[in-house]
Amino acid sequence: MQFELTKEYLDELRLAIKSNEEGTLLDLITDLHSADIGEILDELEIEEAKVLYKFLDASRASEVLTHMEERTREDFLESLSAKEIAERFIDNLDSDDAADLLIELPQPLKEEVISLIEDKQQAQDIVDLLHFEEGTAGALMAKELIAVQANWTVSTAVKEMRKQAEMINHVYTVYVIDDSEVLIGRLPIKKLLLTPLKSKIGDIYDSHIESVHVDTDQEEVATIMEKYDLVALPVVDELGRLLGRITIDDVVDVIKEEAEKDYALASGISSTVESTDSVVTLTRARLPWLLIGLVGGILGARVIEMYEGDLQLYPEMAFFIPLIAAMGGNAGVQSSAIIVQGLANNSLGFTGMFAKLSKEFLVGLLNGFVCSSLILIYNIFFNDSWGLSLTVSAALFTVIIVATLFGTFVPLVLDKYDIDPALATGPFITTVNDVLGLFIYFLIGHLFYI
Amino acid sequence: MQFELTKEYLDELRLAIKSNEEGTLLDLITDLHSADIGEILDELEIEEAKVLYKFLDASRASEVLTHMEERTREDFLESLSAKEIAERFIDNLDSDDAADLLIELPQPLKEEVISLIEDKQQAQDIVDLLHFEEGTAGALMAKELIAVQANWTVSTAVKEMRKQAEMINHVYTVYVIDDSEVLIGRLPIKKLLLTPLKSKIGDIYDSHIESVHVDTDQEEVATIMEKYDLVALPVVDELGRLLGRITIDDVVDVIKEEAEKDYALASGISSTVESTDSVVTLTRARLPWLLIGLVGGILGARVIEMYEGDLQLYPEMAFFIPLIAAMGGNAGVQSSAIIVQGLANNSLGFTGMFAKLSKEFLVGLLNGFVCSSLILIYNIFFNDSWGLSLTVSAALFTVIIVATLFGTFVPLVLDKYDIDPALATGPFITTVNDVLGLFIYFLIGHLFYI
Repeated sequence: MQFELTKEYLDELRLAIKSNEEGTLLDLITDLHSADIGEILDELEIEEAKVLYKFLDASRASEVLTHMEERTREDFLESLSAKEIAERFIDNLDSDDAADLLIELPQPLKEEVISLIEDKQQAQDIVDLLHFEEGTAGALMAKELIAVQANWTVSTAVKEMRKQAEMINHVYTVYVIDDSEVLIGRLPIKKLLLTPLKSKIGDIYDSHIESVHVDTDQEEVATIMEKYDLVALPVVDELGRLLGRITIDDVVDVIKEEAEKDYALASGISSTVESTDSVVTLTRARLPWLLIGLVGGILGARVIEMYEGDLQLYPEMAFFIPLIAAMGGNAGVQSSAIIVQGLANNSLGFTGMFAKLSKEFLVGLLNGFVCSSLILIYNIFFNDSWGLSLTVSAALFTVIIVATLFGTFVPLVLDKYDIDPALATGPFITTVNDVLGLFIYFLIGHLFYI
Repeated sequence: MQFELTKEYLDELRLAIKSNEEGTLLDLITDLHSADIGEILDELEIEEAKVLYKFLDASRASEVLTHMEERTREDFLESLSAKEIAERFIDNLDSDDAADLLIELPQPLKEEVISLIEDKQQAQDIVDLLHFEEGTAGALMAKELIAVQANWTVSTAVKEMRKQAEMINHVYTVYVIDDSEVLIGRLPIKKLLLTPLKSKIGDIYDSHIESVHVDTDQEEVATIMEKYDLVALPVVDELGRLLGRITIDDVVDVIKEEAEKDYALASGISSTVESTDSVVTLTRARLPWLLIGLVGGILGARVIEMYEGDLQLYPEMAFFIPLIAAMGGNAGVQSSAIIVQGLANNSLGFTGMFAKLSKEFLVGLLNGFVCSSLILIYNIFFNDSWGLSLTVSAALFTVIIVATLFGTFVPLVLDKYDIDPALATGPFITTVNDVLGLFIYFLIGHLFYI
């Protein structure tokens, strides 16, 4: 039932495009959803994509565009004239999709396209949307929605809704406004089906409605829609006037993006890249962490250098350097990841910083005890120096506790100063804990062994 | 506009509960959404929660329950009698929410509750749902939906829909079925508003509809709903008969869960835990990675031990051990994270394994070149041994390339054998690359220096 893009399909399609076989081409794409065609276009060369595009009717052609990857869409659009873009695409799109598309174009092309939009109301809506800052509710919302006035009857409302419905693709919620366009509630479709036509909207509408201000951050929008299980969320201005609505499909994209960003940060990648990006893009996204690691490594070298004389006498101290460094990094990353997720989900509870650190101290104590006991057992069997065995276990125990506390503390502090705590999970915590671990190891070595 | 749970609010509420001040209590909760009350209940003791619960009407009381955390909800429900659960909660819930709730109860209590459900149709629906395996479309779907038959007129359909609408909370899509209950399409609400009452549904419905089989994995359900921007997705059996529908709010939860699971794995946490979990739970979730790290550290110690004699003569070789080990781990994790995300998003493109490795080889080459040049410059200034400087740079260069390739290779292979590639990102790649890096370092040391 679901379409799956395979290499075979793609080869067949490319052949049909190359040899201009209209029949085969139409057979291949007719039954596909616009999202599938978008996926296909991402894989084609621009010239091939242009041929394929000719076979799509106007409404599908514009929908397809919204499903393409940003990069391929940009290339594709820039190969077209402003007139083509305005007539073939913008006219058929919802205001939010149109704005998203225009925002990617170079300034002169963007302005030219806007001037060529036929429907002046739509042009106004789009320009309005372009002014909202990226990442806010305003930039996510569409202007298309269905609203009825509280002083209308159900039958007037249905008549008006018919007019409005022609303009929009999905009716999720019917909003109720007063005569100053202030949002006062919603009219459940259920109610519309169940109420006599002469009733006043004002008597039957539901005044419980969640809404957000137009400047609300998109992450907060996502949290609200998720928490209250909403499919559409109205957006209002300072006076409470209804400006637009955000639909869940756009918010799902936000949720995915945020999750991918956090995942990338935890893995030491500074921006969300894909394996299909260019070698240079991929390299650039990874270098920052590697450079931080490099600095950490140099600092580590400096720490060890301080104990060069000891190492000459006790070279076996070097054996456990990687163990100590790695375990500090691991324990620290684990703690910070739990805090970062808790902050993101607002599920840290109401205990203060001290209580959180105390709890993590216990966790570190337990983990440290288990790990240092195990390494002690290993060393008793495979290592004949009691001094070194004790040093390794004591250092490991200390390092795990210190790293656990540090990993908890840093994201909490970053969050307090409004810095994205996810920054703490990857490079920073690992590197600092590496260096810290080495210090602890040699200090304890001096105590027990050297 | 949004409710935010603060410590002050909680204290006030607790005081009102303790002193049984009905007025204050009602003031505090009357205007709240059930999701907010769920959040509050998560923070209260069971006895406090029970007092608060008395003030909620039946429909709100059951909704609140679906918004609580699993752990606190379980405790709360187990403190009630089967009769209370059936009458106060199950009767007011949609079948999917009711099933989710029942599945958490101990077997005897669950059976008792089911036997006490008054609405026999609902009891059947719930029992049906309980049989579907967790993580499948069947387990996600609700039986409540609105369906009309193709041979009805619009006016019959509206009449029937009114009946059906009383039973369900949100009308997203009106499904069209034939007389064997096979799903054949959908009736856009827009169409319903715009078509004369005497038209036949069969003439006006839209036959383009995405659906999934009842056994489909929930991750695939999420991918489909995301790709096609759906708010509801019908579920069918082998014969194409309409069984239920999945709504986007449940899928948003799936998306979040999957993302959190991947994030936890990348951070070396074996199950998704929260900072509010018990110390033992938190420790248990972290020990596996620490133990893998421990084994890696022991292997690393073994590698270095092989070169003990060299270290005695050249203790400065030890300086760069942490650098080499850390950089191998970092580079490997970065590569595997990009592959893991690509696999999850189905965005790896159609190049084969060899092409992917070649590309990553170039990325490794670039990163390795930059990092090893920088460390060379550092060593030229701060280190007077040319042999060691060359060794460190050559080893770093090699380690970054090897780790990059290894990090790309492992998740691709895991995926081929249907093992979750996310397993590769955290502990495994880091540890193997640590050990591998040490080998390379000492081998190259022998070539250039020792």
